[in-house]
Amino acid sequence: MINPFNTQQAFESITDYWSPKIIGEVNGQYIKIAKLKGAFVWHKHEKEDELFLIVKGELTIELKDITVHLKEGDGYVVPKNTLHNPSCEQECWVMLIEPKETLHTGNVKIARSKSIEDQLK
Amino acid sequence: MINPFNTQQAFESITDYWSPKIIGEVNGQYIKIAKLKGAFVWHKHEKEDELFLIVKGELTIELKDITVHLKEGDGYVVPKNTLHNPSCEQECWVMLIEPKETLHTGNVKIARSKSIEDQLK
Repeated sequence: MINPFNTQQAFESITDYWSPKIIGEVNGQYIKIAKLKGAFVWHKHEKEDELFLIVKGELTIELKDITVHLKEGDGYVVPKNTLHNPSCEQECWVMLIEPKETLHTGNVKIARSKSIEDQLK
Repeated sequence: MINPFNTQQAFESITDYWSPKIIGEVNGQYIKIAKLKGAFVWHKHEKEDELFLIVKGELTIELKDITVHLKEGDGYVVPKNTLHNPSCEQECWVMLIEPKETLHTGNVKIARSKSIEDQLK
């Protein structure tokens, strides 16, 4: 991890969708960025809140009872233990803040699940 | 606090420099924004790292041994127990992530120190 970090350069180094990259660490939380496109998977993080900050584009997050539409500059905290499913038709750049142990697919294990070690590469 | 939040609108509601506004909460950390201009004060946070994300403008952070220059899109984590002094000649907009108990002037109490309650207004 580089401190200070340059968000734009870090995004440009990402080639895969739904593959978070860890760019910093603050108080036991990782600062991650990811490029998203298409639909992800319904999942939850039992003990961890997850902050989505929209850097570019738009993101929809479906929850059980509501659907949240986010635009550039918007932020949303998915509370712990809350089923959610992010999706976007066009490419979207997000920054995430979440505890070091958080897995991006939460309680669900799928082919595109990335380990923390993968996210540090 | 509003969830989701709109960063641009939140910045536009700020009228004072060096007066952080709490806009969100994630895993015991507050998400804050502040408009900065001029010099602040040398201080440290004994037990808490502090993330600075530059939303607009440029910020200089002096530390004991180095000086960090940050531009829009850059991020820097000031490690806990590290003396630092942020400053900027022109107006700079920053987002901060730090534990709920963190005071923005850290171990130093000055006239412009804001309580957590003030930052929630």
